[in-house]
Amino acid sequence: VLAPVRQGGGWAGYRRAVRDLLLTVDPTLGRRASLERSLREAIGDGRLVAGDALPSTRALADDLGISRSTVVAAYEQLAIEGYLITRQGALARVAPTRLPAEPSPGRAKPGRFVPYDFRPGSPAVGLFPRAAWLRSSRAVMRDAADEAFDYGDWRGSPVLRAQLASYLSRVRAVAADVGAVRIYGGFFAAVSFLGDALRASGERRIAIENPSLHVVRQALAGAGLEVVPVPVDAGGIVVEVLETLDVGAVLVTPSHQYPTGVAMTPERRVELIAWARNHGRWIIEDDYDGEFRYDRQPVGALQGLAPDRVIYGGTASKTLAPGLRLAWLVVPAEFRRILDETTNFRGGVSVIEQLTLADLIDRGELDRHVRAARAVYRTRREALIERLAEVVWLRQLAPTSAGLHVTVVADELDEQMLVDRAAELGIGLFGLGPHWSGTPQQSGLVLGFTRPPRHRFDEALTRLVRYLTDER
Amino acid sequence: VLAPVRQGGGWAGYRRAVRDLLLTVDPTLGRRASLERSLREAIGDGRLVAGDALPSTRALADDLGISRSTVVAAYEQLAIEGYLITRQGALARVAPTRLPAEPSPGRAKPGRFVPYDFRPGSPAVGLFPRAAWLRSSRAVMRDAADEAFDYGDWRGSPVLRAQLASYLSRVRAVAADVGAVRIYGGFFAAVSFLGDALRASGERRIAIENPSLHVVRQALAGAGLEVVPVPVDAGGIVVEVLETLDVGAVLVTPSHQYPTGVAMTPERRVELIAWARNHGRWIIEDDYDGEFRYDRQPVGALQGLAPDRVIYGGTASKTLAPGLRLAWLVVPAEFRRILDETTNFRGGVSVIEQLTLADLIDRGELDRHVRAARAVYRTRREALIERLAEVVWLRQLAPTSAGLHVTVVADELDEQMLVDRAAELGIGLFGLGPHWSGTPQQSGLVLGFTRPPRHRFDEALTRLVRYLTDER
Repeated sequence: VLAPVRQGGGWAGYRRAVRDLLLTVDPTLGRRASLERSLREAIGDGRLVAGDALPSTRALADDLGISRSTVVAAYEQLAIEGYLITRQGALARVAPTRLPAEPSPGRAKPGRFVPYDFRPGSPAVGLFPRAAWLRSSRAVMRDAADEAFDYGDWRGSPVLRAQLASYLSRVRAVAADVGAVRIYGGFFAAVSFLGDALRASGERRIAIENPSLHVVRQALAGAGLEVVPVPVDAGGIVVEVLETLDVGAVLVTPSHQYPTGVAMTPERRVELIAWARNHGRWIIEDDYDGEFRYDRQPVGALQGLAPDRVIYGGTASKTLAPGLRLAWLVVPAEFRRILDETTNFRGGVSVIEQLTLADLIDRGELDRHVRAARAVYRTRREALIERLAEVVWLRQLAPTSAGLHVTVVADELDEQMLVDRAAELGIGLFGLGPHWSGTPQQSGLVLGFTRPPRHRFDEALTRLVRYLTDER
Repeated sequence: VLAPVRQGGGWAGYRRAVRDLLLTVDPTLGRRASLERSLREAIGDGRLVAGDALPSTRALADDLGISRSTVVAAYEQLAIEGYLITRQGALARVAPTRLPAEPSPGRAKPGRFVPYDFRPGSPAVGLFPRAAWLRSSRAVMRDAADEAFDYGDWRGSPVLRAQLASYLSRVRAVAADVGAVRIYGGFFAAVSFLGDALRASGERRIAIENPSLHVVRQALAGAGLEVVPVPVDAGGIVVEVLETLDVGAVLVTPSHQYPTGVAMTPERRVELIAWARNHGRWIIEDDYDGEFRYDRQPVGALQGLAPDRVIYGGTASKTLAPGLRLAWLVVPAEFRRILDETTNFRGGVSVIEQLTLADLIDRGELDRHVRAARAVYRTRREALIERLAEVVWLRQLAPTSAGLHVTVVADELDEQMLVDRAAELGIGLFGLGPHWSGTPQQSGLVLGFTRPPRHRFDEALTRLVRYLTDER
C-alpha cells in the first residue's frame, strides 16, 4: 500500500519542481528507501532537474515527520549514486551531468532513467578511478613544461604514445613503437578517419563481420565506403567468404566478437592474415574489450602476428571511461602517411588529458584499475549467466568468458516488444536485431552487465529474470 | 672570451648526454647565467633529453668549482622556465614535454629551440592558470555524476554549452543559447567539419580574406572546397568583390583581421550581412582573438547582428592554451542539422575537460585569466611597437590596438632570407608571405609577442631590433 505523505509549507522558496515533489512511503521498503526511491523517480522523470536545490535535511525531516538522520542517510545514498551533490554547509543539489548519450548502442531514449539497465556499450562508470586521475592531473599541472600547453603533435603526444606502445606490448602483445601510435578523440573518430584514408587511397569497399556494431558500420559508411557483411561462425569471421569479395580492408573483433562473443580461433587468425598478405589488403582489429578475459590470460592481439598488415585499434572507453574520448591506433608504416594526410586537422586531442593518461599508466594505476574492474565484471558475468539459466527459452551464444556483455538468443522472438515492455518496468534491454546487416538471422538480446550500480545489481538481476520468465 | 670548464669524474653514473655536457663560462654573463645558458643549449639541441637526471647541485658545484648556491639558483631558474623539473630530495630532471608543434603557423622547425621567439600563433603558455585549472579538475572529480564519464552528447556537454552561451553573450555580444553551441577538438577541426557540411549541402566554393591564415585555407581545401581569395582593405574584406563571386560562404576575421590587424568597420559589417541575407549565404566568423582589445571595449561579434546568417567560431587556444584542443561554434538553426549529420562520429571531446572548463568559467577564473593576460599583452605590444620604431625601413600595418601579433611590412624584402638568418641567431620570425593566396602582394613579418618568457622579453626585443636594424 502506498500512502501519500503531506507536502508542507517548509518547501516554499524552493523551485516549483521541488515544491511539487510528492513523496510516498512504501511500508515494505521503509522510510529511507521510500524517500530515496521517490527522489530517484523525481530526478528520473524530470520533476527535479540539474541544479535544483533540495530542502535542508532538517526542513524535509520536519516536513515529512521523519527523523533527520533518515533524510541525511537518503541524501548520502543518492549522492553516492550520483543523483545529488552534497556539500558540507550547503543545500544538496541535483547533479548537473546526467547527459543524454550517444552512440553507445543501448541508449535509445536519452534522458529517461532506467533503474535496471542491462544495455551494453559502456563500462561501469561508477568505478572510474577519480582519485588516481586527479593525482595524475595534479602531477601534470605541476610538472609539465609550458610547451605542453602549446600546439602539440597532431599524431598524439609522444609521451602518451610511448606509454601506450609499452602498455599495449605488455598487455595485448601488440608490436608497437612511438612512431606507429596515433591518438584520436574516441574510437568512432578513429574509424571515421580510417574510412577517409581508405577512400583516399582508392578503396571503395570494406568488409565487416555480420553481426557487428551498427555504429561502426555507420562510421565507415559515413566516410563513403560500401560496407560488405561477412558471416561469423564459431571460429570467427568466415575467411572463405572474404576470399570471394573485392574489398580493400576488413574490420574484425578477434578477441571477443561483437556482439556474438566468439573468440577467433588460431587457425582462422592465420587464414585471415594470409588473405591480407596475399591480396595486399588491410585488417582493422577493433580490440574494444581485449583487457577483459576471465578464464585465462587474454589472447594476444592479432596485430602482433602481422604488424605489417593489421591496423590495431584500442580505446580508453571500456577500460576507463567513454567520457574521456580517447582511442588509439597502431598503424603499419605503409599506411601512416595516407592516414596522417587525410586526418590532417580533423584530429586533435587535449594534450593535458593525454599527459594525464600517460602519467596514470606510468604509475601503474591503469593496470590496477583494470584488475579491479575485471574482478567486478567476472563476478557479475557469472551471476548473470547463473540466473539466466532459469530462463529456459533463452540460450547463451558463444560463451567465451570475456568482455562486458553476454548475448542470448531465442527463436521467433519479438525483440522490439520485449525491449519496449521491459522499458515500462524500468528494465533496459537491447536487441540483437540492429547488429545485423540486412535481414536479422537470429533474434536475441545483447545484455550488458556493467550499468546497474553495485548495491542494486542483485535486485536488477532478479527483476530481469522474473521479467524474462514471465514474458514467455 | 669563452673558457671551457673541466668535466669531472663526479658525473659518472649519469647518462652519456649528461656526462658529455660541456659547460662554458662567459665572463660577461657571470657564472650563474653561463651555467643556465649552457644547460638551455644542451636541452635545446638534444644533448640532454626528456627524463635525463642532472647531477646533484652539490656534485655539480664541486665539479665546476663554483658555489652550490649558484647551481641551486640556476636549476631553479630553469625549472621556472620549464626546462627542468625539480623536486625536494630528488635529482633535477629534464622536463618531459617539449613537444614539436603544428600547425601553429610559426613552427616550421619543430624541436629546434628558439630563445628569442617572435613567431605568431600561440598565447603566452607560461601564463596558463594551472592552479585554477587543477581546482576545477578537483571539483569535477568530486562532484560529477557517474554518467559524466559515460558517452556524452556529441554536440558537446550541455553544461559547457550553457556556460559558453552565457560567456559569449556577455564578453562578445554573441546571441547564443545551449541549442546553438557546438564543441569541437580545436578550431581547425571545427573549420574542417564546417567545410564538410558546406560540401554536403551542395556548396563547392568558399571565399576567404586575402591575406589569411594558410592553415585555415588548407582545412577548407581539405574538405574539398575551392577557396576563393577576396582582398582586404582598411575597412576589412571588400564586399564589392565578394558580390561578383559565386560562393556559398565566406570566412572572415572581423574583430582583428588575420594577419593584417584591420578591424572591420561598422559600414562593412552591414554590407557583408546584407550580402549574406540577399543571396542566402553563410558568414563564418573566426573570432580567434576577440577577447584581446587594448584601447577600448572589444567590438562585439558580427554574429550578434545576424545570428541567422553568421556561424560564429571561437576557441580556448588564444585565451587559455592551444594544448586544450577546445573550440566552439554558435550555429544558426538552419545550418545545425547538416553540420551535425556530417560531423557525426568525427567529433568527440573529453567530457571531463569540458566540465573542467565549464567550472573554470563558472568560477570567474576564465575572465580573471583573460584580464591578467590582457595586461601582459598590452604592455608587451606597446614595448614592441615602441622599439620597432627604431627600425626605419619597416612600417606597421593597420595598427588596431588588439590581438597577439603586430604585422610590419617593407617593400622589396627578402622574407625568407630575413627569417633564415634570424633563426641562426636564435630569433624566431615568420614572414607575411605564406598568408597570401597566390602571389604575395606585400612582404613583411607577422610578429607575435607572446612567446619569449617574461624575464627574457626585453633582451629578446633588443636582439630583434638590433638584428632588423643591422640586416638592412
